Amino acid sequence: MRAFERLFEPRGIAIVGASGDITRFGGQTVRALNTSGYAGGVFPVNPKYPEIDGRRCYASLAQIDGPCDLAVIALPAAHVPRAIRECGERGVAYAVVLGGGFRELGEPGLELERDMLAAARETNVRLVGPNCIGLVNVHAHVVAAFGSMTRPPRLIPGPVSVAVQSGGFGMSVVIQSAMAGIGFRNIVATGSESDITMPEIISAFADDPETKAIFTYIEGVADGRALLAALRKALAAGKPVIVWKGGKTGQGERAAQSHTANLTSTYDVYRAALRQCGAIEIFSTEEAADFIQAFLAGRMPRGRSVAVVTNTGGSAVVFSDAADEARLDISPLAETTQVRLAGLLPPLAAVGNPVDTTAGYPRAEHADNYRAAFETLLADPEVDQLCVLFGTIMGNTFELSARVLGQAANGTQKPVFGVSAVPREISSQGWEHLQGARIPLFATPSRAARTMGMLADYAEARRRAEPAVYDVPAPAVRLPAGAVTLDERESKALLAAAGVAVTRDVLLPVEPPIADVARVRFPVALKLVSRDIAHKSDIGAVRLNVTERQFAEAAADIVARARRAAPDARMGGLLACEMVTDGIETIVGVVNDPAFGPVVAFGLGGVLAETLRDVTYRVAPFGKDEARRMILELRAAAIFDGLRGCPPADVDALVHTLVRVASLAWALRGRLAEMDINPLLVRPRGSGAVAADALVVLTGS
Amino acid sequence: MRAFERLFEPRGIAIVGASGDITRFGGQTVRALNTSGYAGGVFPVNPKYPEIDGRRCYASLAQIDGPCDLAVIALPAAHVPRAIRECGERGVAYAVVLGGGFRELGEPGLELERDMLAAARETNVRLVGPNCIGLVNVHAHVVAAFGSMTRPPRLIPGPVSVAVQSGGFGMSVVIQSAMAGIGFRNIVATGSESDITMPEIISAFADDPETKAIFTYIEGVADGRALLAALRKALAAGKPVIVWKGGKTGQGERAAQSHTANLTSTYDVYRAALRQCGAIEIFSTEEAADFIQAFLAGRMPRGRSVAVVTNTGGSAVVFSDAADEARLDISPLAETTQVRLAGLLPPLAAVGNPVDTTAGYPRAEHADNYRAAFETLLADPEVDQLCVLFGTIMGNTFELSARVLGQAANGTQKPVFGVSAVPREISSQGWEHLQGARIPLFATPSRAARTMGMLADYAEARRRAEPAVYDVPAPAVRLPAGAVTLDERESKALLAAAGVAVTRDVLLPVEPPIADVARVRFPVALKLVSRDIAHKSDIGAVRLNVTERQFAEAAADIVARARRAAPDARMGGLLACEMVTDGIETIVGVVNDPAFGPVVAFGLGGVLAETLRDVTYRVAPFGKDEARRMILELRAAAIFDGLRGCPPADVDALVHTLVRVASLAWALRGRLAEMDINPLLVRPRGSGAVAADALVVLTGS
Repeated sequence: MRAFERLFEPRGIAIVGASGDITRFGGQTVRALNTSGYAGGVFPVNPKYPEIDGRRCYASLAQIDGPCDLAVIALPAAHVPRAIRECGERGVAYAVVLGGGFRELGEPGLELERDMLAAARETNVRLVGPNCIGLVNVHAHVVAAFGSMTRPPRLIPGPVSVAVQSGGFGMSVVIQSAMAGIGFRNIVATGSESDITMPEIISAFADDPETKAIFTYIEGVADGRALLAALRKALAAGKPVIVWKGGKTGQGERAAQSHTANLTSTYDVYRAALRQCGAIEIFSTEEAADFIQAFLAGRMPRGRSVAVVTNTGGSAVVFSDAADEARLDISPLAETTQVRLAGLLPPLAAVGNPVDTTAGYPRAEHADNYRAAFETLLADPEVDQLCVLFGTIMGNTFELSARVLGQAANGTQKPVFGVSAVPREISSQGWEHLQGARIPLFATPSRAARTMGMLADYAEARRRAEPAVYDVPAPAVRLPAGAVTLDERESKALLAAAGVAVTRDVLLPVEPPIADVARVRFPVALKLVSRDIAHKSDIGAVRLNVTERQFAEAAADIVARARRAAPDARMGGLLACEMVTDGIETIVGVVNDPAFGPVVAFGLGGVLAETLRDVTYRVAPFGKDEARRMILELRAAAIFDGLRGCPPADVDALVHTLVRVASLAWALRGRLAEMDINPLLVRPRGSGAVAADALVVLTGS
Repeated sequence: MRAFERLFEPRGIAIVGASGDITRFGGQTVRALNTSGYAGGVFPVNPKYPEIDGRRCYASLAQIDGPCDLAVIALPAAHVPRAIRECGERGVAYAVVLGGGFRELGEPGLELERDMLAAARETNVRLVGPNCIGLVNVHAHVVAAFGSMTRPPRLIPGPVSVAVQSGGFGMSVVIQSAMAGIGFRNIVATGSESDITMPEIISAFADDPETKAIFTYIEGVADGRALLAALRKALAAGKPVIVWKGGKTGQGERAAQSHTANLTSTYDVYRAALRQCGAIEIFSTEEAADFIQAFLAGRMPRGRSVAVVTNTGGSAVVFSDAADEARLDISPLAETTQVRLAGLLPPLAAVGNPVDTTAGYPRAEHADNYRAAFETLLADPEVDQLCVLFGTIMGNTFELSARVLGQAANGTQKPVFGVSAVPREISSQGWEHLQGARIPLFATPSRAARTMGMLADYAEARRRAEPAVYDVPAPAVRLPAGAVTLDERESKALLAAAGVAVTRDVLLPVEPPIADVARVRFPVALKLVSRDIAHKSDIGAVRLNVTERQFAEAAADIVARARRAAPDARMGGLLACEMVTDGIETIVGVVNDPAFGPVVAFGLGGVLAETLRDVTYRVAPFGKDEARRMILELRAAAIFDGLRGCPPADVDALVHTLVRVASLAWALRGRLAEMDINPLLVRPRGSGAVAADALVVLTGS
């Protein structure tokens, strides 16, 4: 049996706290199950009533006669732990706890939640919720829910499963997608996720043969790695996961904190994690419906090039703007394609790309030519997707256009889209032709272009879908025990052992300072080495460009300043570091995120770069391709190409460094609090990337 | 009579090239006028037919019997010039030229266009088009058009006028806005704008008492200053102009160039121009309908603060994210407001902001309390706008909620919005309550938040609406005649005369180089002065940090390099420039845009800043407030606040400089090709901003 199979397809459902009053949760569940067509057993439980809505009402769970896999708990919080225990005793494997009153209320609720969980663990009951509106299985007419999940519009069965951390908002997206004709499978509001979590549900959907696409609304997850694993599994299965991340901004995060009690990592980390796993992040309700329709059409592009056909110039301009922003390519069509099109379309038609058939086209006598034009475009190997802008045509003209486009599309594996500003009720015949040919029809050129860009992105993510390499050996370096800040020399030694290039440094004694000319190549950066002084330059314990002549004075000055600023600091020596002057200054950092573990951050150095927050993130570990994409995500990525007479930078070495840092961070995940390479100097191509300063902070082991 | 009054309200309409065949332009116009309810005279003109569609058909314009102010020209291009002349002879003041075949076809078309325009000018006929679908006046049932302007859905009269450079795309926006219940006034597709231009139409709409809001689609205008003037007039009149700019991206621009023959300035300049005039730029069709509804509700906010009421946490999170991006403020409500709300709402309700009434609220018995809660929020002086997220409630609950919100809103001048995921047909009663109370109802929280942000932006633009100061005296500097590149010294002298601070420089002879120690304060930046060498540093003719000791060698080296690189260049001397080392490096540039004239660009200096294209633009001239907003638009604007121990920069001096540069550029607009201050060093507060290098390029006078 698949995970959660009996949760979504229970043989019987008990409603604990059932009621005949449909303003109450339990009343709504009973009413919904009585009218949904659910074929399993429905068992209202409430000692107060002999029957509810014409059904026998049971005094307790123990009395239920018949198979029962799921209980809906519609009781005040104080009574829930006992009800869960009774579920376990009766052999009910799943419970949906609707009400709140648990950890969101602080200490008393927290204790109730612990009792509830203990009851569940001891009796082998798995819980959805608490504090949720429940779940539905549209195919099996299961409604273990209240509120909007029990109300019209009635959903049609389909291949989209939904897991949301807000049932209210989630159902608003479901309803609006349903209006666009989308059918649904399982919908679950996970609430506080005391037991069953969002990643578990996504994983179950990835396994469910009837689910073809997944929509989720996520404010935060406690176990980011489990989320990554679930998303990767869905990607490998070819089941796109569309994610709306709630709480992206300062004010949004504040609202989310008062809504859920989830550990919220920063949005930057979620965004990185979603990208790494090929999840599709959306930013509007309209995108949910548009993107799902595109996936359900079942055609995937091979590249980023699109052909667009229009009957009005303005729509093509608007499409092109949105396509450009979605990084789609609307290059002129191949010469042979243009010649063929010119033979098929009216004399004034433009046949480059966009193809403009001119207004007034087509009439009935053009049907064969118009179809042939579409076939020509779809046959061009340089065209990956086709979009036809129908503008405001309606009636016979639209019907004819839709029919011939549908015929041409039936023979293709390439995605085909239509755009019409005319509402469906005015143009139903044409809509049906397109629907029959699996051609999504959107209301605006921009929405079509964005959807096509998303498809191209997803196709790329699918192609590169590769298991992350988690099996990284820790470098052979003995780490000190306890919570310790390593000094620069120790930090660099750790990095060097992990394969990161560091500057050639020479450790010199503090007292008396001796230049040791044989080993030091001047000029150097001279720095104090101390575990007790993490930010050396703040107290003047760093001097750059020190020559041999300046050495003695500089060394004495550094030591004097350090003594003044931190009289008790232990001094491990003076580090004479190679000066690298031909590198682009970058920063590589690692944070140990509460939900995702080690996350690598990368950005350019300097005040300006910091002001611009031009930083990119990846969850560690990752491979070279991911590191390369990470670099390209910087808005300032072009700086590595060699601008204004500068030579191109050694991006290969930078990629290597990022991968090694990520692997090191993963290997040390139990000990690492934070790691910083600042600066990492990326030198001209062939000369490498070198850590000029580093700081590693360890937690207690 | 107002401008274009007879164009939009003609007493009679001639259709030249009328036809009974409704697949033809002229046929469609006649049919549309016969069914629209137009009360004026309809005069089909075509010598081939005695009557069309049951109306007398005239052999020529001359034969028309009755007042006729507008002719629709549905003839092949070659016949148009003569038809225009006949219009003039008959006293028809306006003509709409539907067909193409003019300058978009190159030289032969260009000649026809010149003939057509000559006929129009000589006979005092004003033209719409050519190459357009025409115009309609919904109130007066005027349909001087073909295609989508003559087809369903039938528009209802209303206060929105529309001017678009693509009739096809424009009508698709109109249709989708009409679906949202919006009524229209005048709609005109301006086509190639051979005669009547977009700015003239916008200006006429600003004067039209029936027009309350304006939507435009613009790919490009030939006279940017006329566009600015029209937009400013509309702003002053309180008539919002919603602009969709087509051709924003590389590929979009390419599509626009093949669509219209307009001079297209870069999108950056348009965006700046639109902002300066308080026009509202939109990026989606949905925004058009949303924003228009907000304006038609007729309430404007006083500030950026919003209160939000929800019954589901997720929707509030999504609203908050979008509100944060729209720079709205969802601060916690005042203590007194919270106390009042707590007394009105259920015990578990959150009364901070967002206000969460909890699911299941309200029931019938809560009506008075719920209304009082809305009244409390609207009475709070710190609340500027209110949004109520109804989520998925329907039936009686929605009806009740909408009714009490409507009652509360009737007493307020503050904008109020609702969000419901439930389609209107399921909840029509509630919709009517909201409509009656002028409360727009949107489908998603994000769209409501964006709309509220836009309203706050527009209210700010209205408050600062001030006439631009164009009356700028030219500085008392004699400019050389002809197309000349001024050398650094001349360029700085011009800037200094205009009130821009420049470095203290001393001009020294080239031969023999003499340091003139009495006047030069070393170290200096030593540079060659030559009108013939605009980019001195490229040839090594700039040396920084030159000390007195290095002077002779440096001077000789510069002269030698210049002689090698440009043997024929005239040398005006050596400039010993003050070294300013405590300034933030910025760049101020002026381009003379073909459509908009002098435009000032501002950004940070350095390779990284250039890579990031973090540049902001304003059409010159402008005042201090505009300059300040310009600076704040930089993504890196925080750098002027003083970061990492740096002192705050002299932003006042920077503002002063930008205003002076803009004024100078405007004063010299007839002569200025380009101007660059690179770098402008913005020093710590109180120390000013100083031009360290400058280049002015003049055109022939």
